Amino acid sequence: MSDYEKLHGYFLEDLSVGMSDTFAKTVTEADILMFAGVSGDTNPVHLNAEFAAETMFKERIAHGMLSASFLSTIFGTRLPGPGAIYMSQNLVFKAPVCIGDTVVAEVTLREINGRRVSFDCECRVGDTIVLQGDAMLMVSKRP
Amino acid sequence: MSDYEKLHGYFLEDLSVGMSDTFAKTVTEADILMFAGVSGDTNPVHLNAEFAAETMFKERIAHGMLSASFLSTIFGTRLPGPGAIYMSQNLVFKAPVCIGDTVVAEVTLREINGRRVSFDCECRVGDTIVLQGDAMLMVSKRP
Amino acid sequence: MSDYEKLHGYFLEDLSVGMSDTFAKTVTEADILMFAGVSGDTNPVHLNAEFAAETMFKERIAHGMLSASFLSTIFGTRLPGPGAIYMSQNLVFKAPVCIGDTVVAEVTLREINGRRVSFDCECRVGDTIVLQGDAMLMVSKRP
Amino acid sequence: MSDYEKLHGYFLEDLSVGMSDTFAKTVTEADILMFAGVSGDTNPVHLNAEFAAETMFKERIAHGMLSASFLSTIFGTRLPGPGAIYMSQNLVFKAPVCIGDTVVAEVTLREINGRRVSFDCECRVGDTIVLQGDAMLMVSKRP
Repeated sequence: MSDYEKLHGYFLEDLSVGMSDTFAKTVTEADILMFAGVSGDTNPVHLNAEFAAETMFKERIAHGMLSASFLSTIFGTRLPGPGAIYMSQNLVFKAPVCIGDTVVAEVTLREINGRRVSFDCECRVGDTIVLQGDAMLMVSKRP
Repeated sequence: MSDYEKLHGYFLEDLSVGMSDTFAKTVTEADILMFAGVSGDTNPVHLNAEFAAETMFKERIAHGMLSASFLSTIFGTRLPGPGAIYMSQNLVFKAPVCIGDTVVAEVTLREINGRRVSFDCECRVGDTIVLQGDAMLMVSKRP
Repeated sequence: MSDYEKLHGYFLEDLSVGMSDTFAKTVTEADILMFAGVSGDTNPVHLNAEFAAETMFKERIAHGMLSASFLSTIFGTRLPGPGAIYMSQNLVFKAPVCIGDTVVAEVTLREINGRRVSFDCECRVGDTIVLQGDAMLMVSKRP
Repeated sequence: MSDYEKLHGYFLEDLSVGMSDTFAKTVTEADILMFAGVSGDTNPVHLNAEFAAETMFKERIAHGMLSASFLSTIFGTRLPGPGAIYMSQNLVFKAPVCIGDTVVAEVTLREINGRRVSFDCECRVGDTIVLQGDAMLMVSKRP
Protein backbone atom coordinates (compact mmCIF):
# COMPACT_ATOMS: atom_id res chain seq x y z
CA MET A 1 0.00 0.00 0.00
CA SER A 2 1.41 3.41 -0.99
CA ASP A 3 1.87 6.28 1.46
CA TYR A 4 -1.04 7.97 -0.32
CA GLU A 5 -3.35 5.05 0.37
CA LYS A 6 -2.16 4.74 3.97
CA LEU A 7 -3.06 8.38 4.57
CA HIS A 8 -6.36 8.26 2.69
CA GLY A 9 -9.57 8.25 4.75
CA TYR A 10 -12.81 6.39 4.01
CA PHE A 11 -13.79 5.58 0.45
CA LEU A 12 -17.39 5.73 -0.71
CA GLU A 13 -17.86 1.98 -0.16
CA ASP A 14 -16.88 2.39 3.50
CA LEU A 15 -19.56 4.94 4.32
CA SER A 16 -23.12 4.47 5.53
CA VAL A 17 -25.90 6.68 6.82
CA GLY A 18 -25.67 7.37 10.55
CA MET A 19 -21.89 7.20 10.83
CA SER A 20 -20.68 9.94 13.13
CA ASP A 21 -17.43 11.40 14.39
CA THR A 22 -16.28 14.17 16.65
CA PHE A 23 -13.48 16.66 17.38
CA ALA A 24 -13.28 18.75 20.51
CA LYS A 25 -10.98 21.48 21.73
CA THR A 26 -10.84 23.97 24.57
CA VAL A 27 -10.79 27.48 23.18
CA THR A 28 -8.09 29.63 24.76
CA GLU A 29 -6.94 33.22 24.45
CA ALA A 30 -4.11 31.87 22.32
CA ASP A 31 -6.56 30.28 19.86
CA ILE A 32 -8.42 33.54 19.49
CA LEU A 33 -5.20 35.48 18.96
CA MET A 34 -3.96 32.99 16.39
CA PHE A 35 -7.29 32.89 14.58
CA ALA A 36 -7.33 36.69 14.47
CA GLY A 37 -3.83 36.62 13.03
CA VAL A 38 -4.44 34.10 10.31
CA SER A 39 -7.86 35.44 9.30
CA GLY A 40 -7.16 39.12 9.83
CA ASP A 41 -10.40 39.34 11.85
CA THR A 42 -9.38 41.67 14.66
CA ASN A 43 -12.98 42.45 15.67
CA PRO A 44 -12.71 43.89 19.20
CA VAL A 45 -15.43 41.54 20.44
CA HIS A 46 -12.71 38.88 20.15
CA LEU A 47 -9.62 40.83 21.25
CA ASN A 48 -10.73 43.68 23.50
CA ALA A 49 -12.17 42.80 26.90
CA GLU A 50 -13.41 46.34 27.56
CA PHE A 51 -15.28 46.55 24.25
CA ALA A 52 -16.68 43.06 24.68
CA ALA A 53 -17.97 43.95 28.16
CA GLU A 54 -20.27 46.53 26.55
CA THR A 55 -21.78 44.05 24.10
CA MET A 56 -24.63 41.61 24.74
CA PHE A 57 -21.98 38.90 25.25
CA LYS A 58 -20.43 40.73 28.25
CA GLU A 59 -17.03 39.15 27.57
CA ARG A 60 -14.68 38.28 24.71
CA ILE A 61 -16.03 35.55 22.45
CA ALA A 62 -14.30 33.29 19.96
CA HIS A 63 -14.65 33.73 16.21
CA GLY A 64 -17.64 31.74 14.93
CA MET A 65 -15.44 30.53 12.09
CA LEU A 66 -13.09 28.94 14.64
CA SER A 67 -15.85 26.60 15.79
CA ALA A 68 -16.80 26.08 12.15
CA SER A 69 -13.24 25.08 11.35
CA PHE A 70 -13.54 22.20 13.82
CA LEU A 71 -16.12 20.68 11.45
CA SER A 72 -13.56 20.92 8.67
CA THR A 73 -11.15 19.17 11.02
CA ILE A 74 -13.47 16.18 11.30
CA PHE A 75 -14.05 16.06 7.55
CA GLY A 76 -10.38 16.43 6.75
CA THR A 77 -8.91 14.06 9.30
CA ARG A 78 -11.54 11.53 10.42
CA LEU A 79 -14.85 11.24 8.56
CA PRO A 80 -14.60 10.91 5.59
CA GLY A 81 -10.93 11.89 6.16
CA PRO A 82 -8.11 12.69 3.71
CA GLY A 83 -9.06 12.46 0.04
CA ALA A 84 -12.62 13.77 0.44
CA ILE A 85 -13.41 17.09 -1.22
CA TYR A 86 -15.28 19.82 0.64
CA MET A 87 -18.11 21.08 -1.58
CA SER A 88 -20.26 23.21 0.70
CA GLN A 89 -20.92 24.14 4.31
CA ASN A 90 -23.90 25.90 5.83
CA LEU A 91 -23.53 27.43 9.28
CA VAL A 92 -25.97 28.90 11.79
CA PHE A 93 -24.34 30.54 14.79
CA LYS A 94 -26.63 29.90 17.77
CA ALA A 95 -24.68 30.95 20.86
CA PRO A 96 -21.31 32.46 21.71
CA VAL A 97 -18.17 30.51 22.63
CA CYS A 98 -16.17 32.09 25.45
CA ILE A 99 -12.55 31.69 26.54
CA GLY A 100 -12.16 28.41 28.39
CA ASP A 101 -15.15 26.74 26.74
CA THR A 102 -14.59 23.30 25.30
CA VAL A 103 -16.25 23.07 21.90
CA VAL A 104 -17.39 19.59 20.88
CA ALA A 105 -17.91 19.38 17.13
CA GLU A 106 -19.85 16.45 15.73
CA VAL A 107 -20.90 15.41 12.24
CA THR A 108 -23.37 12.67 11.30
CA LEU A 109 -23.71 11.19 7.82
CA ARG A 110 -27.23 11.97 6.57
CA GLU A 111 -27.35 10.93 2.95
CA ILE A 112 -25.25 9.41 0.20
CA ASN A 113 -26.20 10.52 -3.30
CA GLY A 114 -23.79 9.16 -5.89
CA ARG A 115 -20.41 10.44 -4.74
CA ARG A 116 -22.02 13.32 -2.85
CA VAL A 117 -22.18 12.70 0.88
CA SER A 118 -24.18 14.98 3.18
CA PHE A 119 -23.61 15.50 6.88
CA ASP A 120 -25.51 17.13 9.73
CA CYS A 121 -23.12 19.29 11.75
CA GLU A 122 -23.24 20.57 15.27
CA CYS A 123 -20.91 22.25 17.78
CA ARG A 124 -21.79 22.18 21.48
CA VAL A 125 -20.41 23.69 24.67
CA GLY A 126 -21.77 21.49 27.41
CA ASP A 127 -25.47 21.09 26.57
CA THR A 128 -25.67 24.30 24.55
CA ILE A 129 -25.66 24.09 20.78
CA VAL A 130 -23.41 26.92 19.62
CA LEU A 131 -23.35 26.14 15.90
CA GLN A 132 -25.57 24.06 13.64
CA GLY A 133 -25.39 23.30 9.97
CA ASP A 134 -24.87 20.82 7.21
CA ALA A 135 -22.16 20.04 4.73
CA MET A 136 -21.62 18.20 1.48
CA LEU A 137 -18.43 16.39 0.51
CA MET A 138 -17.40 14.47 -2.58
CA VAL A 139 -15.94 11.06 -1.78
CA SER A 140 -14.28 8.85 -4.36
CA LYS A 141 -14.72 5.13 -4.85
CA ARG A 142 -12.02 2.72 -3.82
CA PRO A 143 -9.45 2.71 -6.64
CA MET B 1 -17.43 59.59 22.47
CA SER B 2 -16.60 56.46 24.48
CA ASP B 3 -13.94 53.97 23.38
CA TYR B 4 -16.81 51.56 22.66
CA GLU B 5 -18.45 53.99 20.27
CA LYS B 6 -15.13 54.85 18.60
CA LEU B 7 -14.55 51.17 17.87
CA HIS B 8 -18.14 50.38 16.79
CA GLY B 9 -18.81 49.84 13.09
CA TYR B 10 -21.86 50.86 11.08
CA PHE B 11 -25.28 51.06 12.73
CA LEU B 12 -28.45 49.99 10.95
CA GLU B 13 -29.20 53.55 9.86
CA ASP B 14 -25.84 53.76 8.09
CA LEU B 15 -26.44 50.74 5.84
CA SER B 16 -28.01 50.53 2.41
CA VAL B 17 -28.44 47.90 -0.27
CA GLY B 18 -25.44 47.65 -2.59
CA MET B 19 -22.78 48.68 -0.06
CA SER B 20 -19.72 46.54 -0.54
CA ASP B 21 -16.36 45.97 1.08
CA THR B 22 -13.33 43.81 0.58
CA PHE B 23 -10.42 42.08 2.32
CA ALA B 24 -7.60 40.41 0.49
CA LYS B 25 -4.59 38.41 1.52
CA THR B 26 -1.91 36.30 -0.09
CA VAL B 27 -2.10 32.77 1.28
CA THR B 28 1.30 31.49 2.36
CA GLU B 29 2.66 28.25 3.79
CA ALA B 30 2.68 30.03 7.13
CA ASP B 31 -1.07 30.71 6.87
CA ILE B 32 -1.76 27.07 6.16
CA LEU B 33 0.40 25.92 9.05
CA MET B 34 -1.21 28.35 11.47
CA PHE B 35 -4.70 27.48 10.30
CA ALA B 36 -3.92 23.80 10.74
CA GLY B 37 -2.60 24.52 14.21
CA VAL B 38 -5.53 26.55 15.45
CA SER B 39 -8.25 24.41 13.82
CA GLY B 40 -6.62 21.02 14.27
CA ASP B 41 -7.31 20.30 10.59
CA THR B 42 -4.10 18.49 9.66
CA ASN B 43 -5.51 17.01 6.45
CA PRO B 44 -2.46 15.98 4.37
CA VAL B 45 -3.87 17.79 1.33
CA HIS B 46 -2.90 20.96 3.21
CA LEU B 47 0.34 19.87 4.88
CA ASN B 48 1.85 17.03 2.88
CA ALA B 49 3.19 17.90 -0.57
CA GLU B 50 3.66 14.24 -1.55
CA PHE B 51 0.09 13.30 -0.62
CA ALA B 52 -1.27 16.43 -2.30
CA ALA B 53 0.60 15.60 -5.51
CA GLU B 54 -1.49 12.44 -5.82
CA THR B 55 -4.80 14.26 -5.49
CA MET B 56 -6.74 15.99 -8.25
CA PHE B 57 -5.27 19.29 -6.98
CA LYS B 58 -1.68 18.16 -7.73
CA GLU B 59 -0.30 20.41 -4.95
CA ARG B 60 -1.07 21.51 -1.40
CA ILE B 61 -4.18 23.64 -1.13
CA ALA B 62 -5.36 26.01 1.58
CA HIS B 63 -8.19 25.16 3.97
CA GLY B 64 -11.52 26.25 2.50
CA MET B 65 -12.37 27.66 5.91
CA LEU B 66 -9.37 29.98 5.69
CA SER B 67 -10.89 31.74 2.68
CA ALA B 68 -14.24 31.66 4.46
CA SER B 69 -12.70 33.37 7.46
CA PHE B 70 -11.77 36.35 5.28
CA LEU B 71 -15.53 36.98 4.90
CA SER B 72 -15.78 37.05 8.68
CA THR B 73 -12.91 39.56 8.64
CA ILE B 74 -14.89 41.94 6.48
CA PHE B 75 -18.00 41.56 8.64
CA GLY B 76 -16.06 41.97 11.87
CA THR B 77 -13.81 44.84 10.94
CA ARG B 78 -15.28 46.78 7.99
CA LEU B 79 -18.89 46.15 6.90
CA PRO B 80 -20.93 46.21 9.10
CA GLY B 81 -17.88 46.16 11.45
CA PRO B 82 -17.58 45.78 15.23
CA GLY B 83 -20.90 45.42 17.04
CA ALA B 84 -22.67 43.38 14.35
CA ILE B 85 -23.66 39.83 15.26
CA TYR B 86 -22.93 36.95 12.91
CA MET B 87 -26.10 34.86 12.52
CA SER B 88 -25.40 32.53 9.61
CA GLN B 89 -23.04 31.84 6.75
CA ASN B 90 -23.50 29.59 3.72
CA LEU B 91 -20.44 28.54 1.78
CA VAL B 92 -19.92 26.80 -1.55
CA PHE B 93 -16.31 25.89 -2.30
CA LYS B 94 -15.83 26.26 -6.06
CA ALA B 95 -12.09 25.98 -6.68
CA PRO B 96 -8.91 25.36 -4.72
CA VAL B 97 -6.61 28.06 -3.30
CA CYS B 98 -2.91 27.28 -3.64
CA ILE B 99 0.13 28.65 -1.87
CA GLY B 100 0.95 32.09 -3.21
CA ASP B 101 -2.58 32.82 -4.39
CA THR B 102 -4.02 36.17 -3.35
CA VAL B 103 -7.60 35.68 -2.18
CA VAL B 104 -9.86 38.70 -2.63
CA ALA B 105 -12.94 38.41 -0.43
CA GLU B 106 -15.86 40.70 -1.12
CA VAL B 107 -19.30 41.11 0.43
CA THR B 108 -22.21 43.11 -0.95
CA LEU B 109 -25.26 44.11 1.05
CA ARG B 110 -28.30 42.41 -0.53
CA GLU B 111 -31.21 43.06 1.79
CA ILE B 112 -32.16 44.74 5.05
CA ASN B 113 -35.04 43.11 6.86
CA GLY B 114 -35.61 44.71 10.24
CA ARG B 115 -32.29 44.34 12.02
CA ARG B 116 -31.33 41.37 9.84
CA VAL B 117 -28.91 42.31 7.10
CA SER B 118 -28.06 39.86 4.28
CA PHE B 119 -24.91 39.86 2.21
CA ASP B 120 -23.75 38.12 -0.95
CA CYS B 121 -20.25 36.78 -0.44
CA GLU B 122 -17.50 35.85 -2.84
CA CYS B 123 -13.81 35.01 -2.75
CA ARG B 124 -11.76 35.23 -5.93
CA VAL B 125 -8.24 34.38 -7.01
CA GLY B 126 -7.64 36.48 -10.08
CA ASP B 127 -10.78 35.95 -12.17
CA THR B 128 -11.65 32.58 -10.64
CA ILE B 129 -14.36 32.41 -8.02
CA VAL B 130 -13.07 30.07 -5.35
CA LEU B 131 -15.87 30.48 -2.82
CA GLN B 132 -19.41 31.77 -3.04
CA GLY B 133 -22.09 32.19 -0.43
CA ASP B 134 -24.30 34.44 1.59
CA ALA B 135 -24.47 35.57 5.16
CA MET B 136 -26.87 37.14 7.62
CA LEU B 137 -25.87 39.53 10.39
CA MET B 138 -27.84 41.32 13.07
CA VAL B 139 -27.06 45.03 13.25
CA SER B 140 -28.33 47.31 15.99
CA LYS B 141 -29.81 50.75 15.64
CA ARG B 142 -27.84 53.83 16.65
CA PRO B 143 -28.22 54.18 20.42
CA MET C 1 -12.52 50.57 -9.07
CA SER C 2 -9.52 48.23 -8.91
CA ASP C 3 -8.83 45.97 -5.94
CA TYR C 4 -5.87 48.24 -5.16
CA GLU C 5 -8.10 51.30 -4.95
CA LYS C 6 -10.71 49.44 -2.87
CA LEU C 7 -8.06 48.53 -0.34
CA HIS C 8 -6.33 51.93 -0.29
CA GLY C 9 -6.87 54.18 2.73
CA TYR C 10 -7.17 57.96 2.85
CA PHE C 11 -5.43 60.10 0.26
CA LEU C 12 -3.84 63.45 1.14
CA GLU C 13 -6.95 65.37 0.05
CA ASP C 14 -9.08 63.40 2.53
CA LEU C 15 -7.03 64.33 5.60
CA SER C 16 -7.39 67.30 7.94
CA VAL C 17 -5.87 68.37 11.24
CA GLY C 18 -7.66 66.89 14.24
CA MET C 19 -8.74 63.63 12.60
CA SER C 20 -8.30 60.80 15.04
CA ASP C 21 -8.62 57.04 15.15
CA THR C 22 -8.13 54.24 17.61
CA PHE C 23 -7.23 50.57 18.01
CA ALA C 24 -7.56 48.70 21.25
CA LYS C 25 -6.69 45.22 22.40
CA THR C 26 -6.50 43.26 25.62
CA VAL C 27 -2.95 42.03 26.15
CA THR C 28 -2.86 38.34 27.03
CA GLU C 29 -0.15 35.84 27.89
CA ALA C 30 -0.55 34.58 24.33
CA ASP C 31 0.28 38.03 22.95
CA ILE C 32 3.43 38.22 25.04
CA LEU C 33 4.53 34.75 23.99
CA MET C 34 3.90 35.45 20.31
CA PHE C 35 5.64 38.81 20.48
CA ALA C 36 8.62 37.16 22.16
CA GLY C 37 8.65 34.54 19.44
CA VAL C 38 8.51 36.87 16.49
CA SER C 39 10.86 39.50 17.92
CA GLY C 40 13.26 37.20 19.72
CA ASP C 41 12.91 39.41 22.82
CA THR C 42 12.86 36.74 25.52
CA ASN C 43 13.60 39.17 28.36
CA PRO C 44 12.54 37.36 31.56
CA VAL C 45 10.54 40.39 32.68
CA HIS C 46 8.07 39.33 29.97
CA LEU C 47 8.28 35.53 30.23
CA ASN C 48 9.43 34.60 33.72
CA ALA C 49 7.00 35.31 36.55
CA GLU C 50 9.60 34.62 39.25
CA PHE C 51 12.14 37.02 37.75
CA ALA C 52 9.45 39.64 37.14
CA ALA C 53 8.31 39.41 40.77
CA GLU C 54 11.72 40.67 41.85
CA THR C 55 11.62 43.73 39.58
CA MET C 56 9.96 47.08 40.32
CA PHE C 57 7.00 45.89 38.21
CA LYS C 58 6.29 42.94 40.57
CA GLU C 59 4.75 40.91 37.71
CA ARG C 60 5.32 40.08 34.06
CA ILE C 61 4.84 43.05 31.76
CA ALA C 62 4.21 43.25 28.02
CA HIS C 63 6.87 44.34 25.57
CA GLY C 64 6.76 48.11 25.10
CA MET C 65 7.08 47.50 21.37
CA LEU C 66 3.81 45.54 21.44
CA SER C 67 1.89 48.64 22.51
CA ALA C 68 3.90 50.63 19.99
CA SER C 69 2.86 48.23 17.26
CA PHE C 70 -0.80 49.11 17.90
CA LEU C 71 0.03 52.62 16.64
CA SER C 72 1.35 51.04 13.46
CA THR C 73 -1.94 49.13 13.26
CA ILE C 74 -3.92 52.37 13.19
CA PHE C 75 -1.62 53.89 10.58
CA GLY C 76 -1.65 50.78 8.43
CA THR C 77 -5.32 49.91 8.56
CA ARG C 78 -7.38 52.98 9.53
CA LEU C 79 -5.77 56.44 9.48
CA PRO C 80 -4.27 57.12 6.98
CA GLY C 81 -4.65 53.40 6.14
CA PRO C 82 -3.15 51.27 3.37
CA GLY C 83 -0.93 53.13 0.95
CA ALA C 84 0.62 55.51 3.50
CA ILE C 85 4.36 55.17 4.14
CA TYR C 86 5.72 55.09 7.68
CA MET C 87 8.65 57.52 7.92
CA SER C 88 9.35 57.85 11.63
CA GLN C 89 8.03 57.05 15.09
CA ASN C 90 9.12 58.44 18.45
CA LEU C 91 8.12 56.54 21.57
CA VAL C 92 8.28 57.32 25.28
CA PHE C 93 7.37 54.43 27.54
CA LYS C 94 5.57 55.90 30.57
CA ALA C 95 4.12 52.95 32.48
CA PRO C 96 4.04 49.17 32.25
CA VAL C 97 1.30 47.11 30.59
CA CYS C 98 0.38 43.94 32.49
CA ILE C 99 -1.39 40.78 31.42
CA GLY C 100 -5.12 41.45 31.13
CA ASP C 101 -4.73 45.17 30.54
CA THR C 102 -6.66 46.60 27.61
CA VAL C 103 -4.41 48.99 25.69
CA VAL C 104 -6.24 51.76 23.84
CA ALA C 105 -4.02 53.27 21.15
CA GLU C 106 -5.04 56.57 19.63
CA VAL C 107 -3.50 58.84 17.02
CA THR C 108 -4.50 62.41 16.18
CA LEU C 109 -3.46 64.25 13.06
CA ARG C 110 -1.35 67.25 14.13
CA GLU C 111 0.06 68.76 10.96
CA ILE C 112 0.11 68.35 7.19
CA ASN C 113 3.28 69.60 5.53
CA GLY C 114 3.28 68.79 1.83
CA ARG C 115 2.86 65.04 1.70
CA ARG C 116 4.28 64.65 5.21
CA VAL C 117 1.57 64.09 7.80
CA SER C 118 2.37 64.20 11.53
CA PHE C 119 0.41 62.51 14.27
CA ASP C 120 0.36 62.67 18.07
CA CYS C 121 0.28 59.16 19.48
CA GLU C 122 -0.84 57.78 22.79
CA CYS C 123 -1.56 54.40 24.38
CA ARG C 124 -3.64 54.23 27.54
CA VAL C 125 -4.68 51.56 30.01
CA GLY C 126 -7.76 52.97 31.69
CA ASP C 127 -6.76 56.55 32.58
CA THR C 128 -3.03 55.84 32.66
CA ILE C 129 -0.90 56.87 29.70
CA VAL C 130 1.48 53.99 29.09
CA LEU C 131 3.11 55.25 25.90
CA GLN C 132 3.35 58.65 24.27
CA GLY C 133 4.94 59.77 21.05
CA ASP C 134 4.58 61.14 17.59
CA ALA C 135 4.90 59.80 14.09
CA MET C 136 5.34 61.01 10.55
CA LEU C 137 3.84 59.34 7.48
CA MET C 138 4.02 60.11 3.79
CA VAL C 139 0.60 60.14 2.12
CA SER C 140 0.09 60.37 -1.61
CA LYS C 141 -2.38 62.53 -3.50
CA ARG C 142 -5.45 61.03 -5.12
CA PRO C 143 -4.30 59.59 -8.46
CA MET D 1 23.72 34.05 43.61
CA SER D 2 19.91 34.02 43.25
CA ASP D 3 18.12 33.07 40.05
CA TYR D 4 17.22 36.73 39.69
CA GLU D 5 20.87 37.78 39.75
CA LYS D 6 21.87 34.98 37.38
CA LEU D 7 19.32 36.20 34.85
CA HIS D 8 20.11 39.89 35.31
CA GLY D 9 22.09 41.63 32.57
CA TYR D 10 24.72 44.37 32.97
CA PHE D 11 24.59 46.73 35.92
CA LEU D 12 25.51 50.38 35.56
CA GLU D 13 29.06 49.75 36.75
CA ASP D 14 29.59 47.23 33.93
CA LEU D 15 28.74 49.65 31.12
CA SER D 16 30.98 52.02 29.17
CA VAL D 17 30.63 54.22 26.11
CA GLY D 18 31.23 52.38 22.84
CA MET D 19 29.95 48.99 23.98
CA SER D 20 27.92 47.41 21.21
CA ASP D 21 25.79 44.37 20.58
CA THR D 22 23.75 42.87 17.81
CA PHE D 23 20.77 40.66 16.98
CA ALA D 24 19.95 39.42 13.52
CA LYS D 25 17.13 37.45 11.99
CA THR D 26 15.92 36.48 8.55
CA VAL D 27 12.42 37.83 8.01
CA THR D 28 10.06 35.23 6.60
CA GLU D 29 6.43 35.15 5.52
CA ALA D 30 5.72 33.49 8.85
CA ASP D 31 7.24 36.41 10.78
CA ILE D 32 5.07 38.85 8.88
CA LEU D 33 1.96 36.76 9.46
CA MET D 34 2.70 36.42 13.17
CA PHE D 35 3.51 40.10 13.55
CA ALA D 36 0.24 40.98 11.80
CA GLY D 37 -1.57 38.68 14.19
CA VAL D 38 -0.09 39.97 17.40
CA SER D 39 -0.22 43.65 16.41
CA GLY D 40 -3.46 43.58 14.46
CA ASP D 41 -1.67 45.39 11.62
CA THR D 42 -3.13 43.68 8.56
CA ASN D 43 -2.01 46.42 6.16
CA PRO D 44 -2.16 44.81 2.69
CA VAL D 45 1.37 46.04 1.92
CA HIS D 46 2.44 43.30 4.34
CA LEU D 47 -0.08 40.55 3.54
CA ASN D 48 -1.31 41.01 -0.01
CA ALA D 49 1.18 40.42 -2.83
CA GLU D 50 -1.12 41.90 -5.48
CA PHE D 51 -1.69 45.12 -3.53
CA ALA D 52 2.01 45.38 -2.69
CA ALA D 53 2.93 45.00 -6.35
CA GLU D 54 1.12 48.27 -7.06
CA THR D 55 3.00 50.22 -4.40
CA MET D 56 6.45 51.83 -4.73
CA PHE D 57 7.85 48.78 -2.93
CA LYS D 58 6.70 46.39 -5.72
CA GLU D 59 6.44 43.47 -3.26
CA ARG D 60 5.29 42.68 0.27
CA ILE D 61 7.40 44.35 2.95
CA ALA D 62 7.79 43.59 6.63
CA HIS D 63 6.27 45.77 9.35
CA GLY D 64 8.74 48.52 10.31
CA MET D 65 7.93 47.74 13.93
CA LEU D 66 9.19 44.19 13.44
CA SER D 67 12.69 45.50 12.70
CA ALA D 68 12.28 47.95 15.57
CA SER D 69 11.44 45.09 17.89
CA PHE D 70 14.86 43.55 17.19
CA LEU D 71 16.38 46.58 18.95
CA SER D 72 14.21 45.80 21.95
CA THR D 73 15.54 42.25 21.73
CA ILE D 74 19.11 43.45 22.14
CA PHE D 75 18.18 45.72 25.03
CA GLY D 76 16.12 43.06 26.75
CA THR D 77 18.41 40.09 26.32
CA ARG D 78 22.01 41.28 25.73
CA LEU D 79 22.96 44.93 26.26
CA PRO D 80 22.14 46.06 28.89
CA GLY D 81 20.01 42.87 29.20
CA PRO D 82 17.38 41.81 31.76
CA GLY D 83 16.71 44.32 34.51
CA ALA D 84 17.15 47.43 32.39
CA ILE D 85 14.08 49.60 31.87
CA TYR D 86 13.12 50.87 28.42
CA MET D 87 12.41 54.60 28.64
CA SER D 88 12.25 55.79 25.04
CA GLN D 89 12.93 54.82 21.46
CA ASN D 90 13.13 56.99 18.37
CA LEU D 91 12.85 55.34 14.98
CA VAL D 92 13.42 56.53 11.42
CA PHE D 93 12.37 54.04 8.75
CA LYS D 94 14.85 54.43 5.88
CA ALA D 95 14.22 51.51 3.54
CA PRO D 96 11.87 48.54 3.24
CA VAL D 97 12.59 45.02 4.50
CA CYS D 98 11.40 42.29 2.14
CA ILE D 99 10.67 38.60 2.66
CA GLY D 100 13.94 36.69 2.87
CA ASP D 101 16.00 39.70 4.00
CA THR D 102 18.23 39.18 7.02
CA VAL D 103 17.92 42.18 9.32
CA VAL D 104 21.00 42.90 11.42
CA ALA D 105 20.12 45.12 14.38
CA GLU D 106 22.93 46.82 16.27
CA VAL D 107 23.04 49.18 19.23
CA THR D 108 26.05 51.15 20.48
CA LEU D 109 26.27 52.81 23.88
CA ARG D 110 26.57 56.56 23.32
CA GLU D 111 26.29 58.18 26.74
CA ILE D 112 25.81 57.40 30.42
CA ASN D 113 24.07 60.13 32.38
CA GLY D 114 23.40 59.01 35.95
CA ARG D 115 21.33 55.86 35.54
CA ARG D 116 20.16 56.93 32.08
CA VAL D 117 22.02 55.15 29.32
CA SER D 118 21.64 56.23 25.67
CA PHE D 119 22.23 54.08 22.62
CA ASP D 120 22.56 54.67 18.89
CA CYS D 121 20.47 52.12 17.02
CA GLU D 122 20.61 50.78 13.51
CA CYS D 123 19.11 47.96 11.47
CA ARG D 124 20.74 46.93 8.21
CA VAL D 125 19.99 44.55 5.37
CA GLY D 126 23.34 43.92 3.74
CA ASP D 127 24.87 47.38 3.37
CA THR D 128 21.54 49.20 3.38
CA ILE D 129 20.43 50.95 6.54
CA VAL D 130 16.72 50.18 6.88
CA LEU D 131 16.11 51.75 10.28
CA GLN D 132 18.01 54.28 12.36
CA GLY D 133 17.34 55.73 15.77
CA ASP D 134 18.33 56.09 19.36
CA ALA D 135 17.06 54.80 22.67
CA MET D 136 17.31 55.53 26.37
CA LEU D 137 17.25 52.90 29.09
CA MET D 138 17.43 53.11 32.87
CA VAL D 139 20.02 50.76 34.34
CA SER D 140 20.37 50.11 38.06
CA LYS D 141 23.55 49.96 40.10
CA ARG D 142 24.89 46.67 41.35
CA PRO D 143 22.91 45.83 44.50
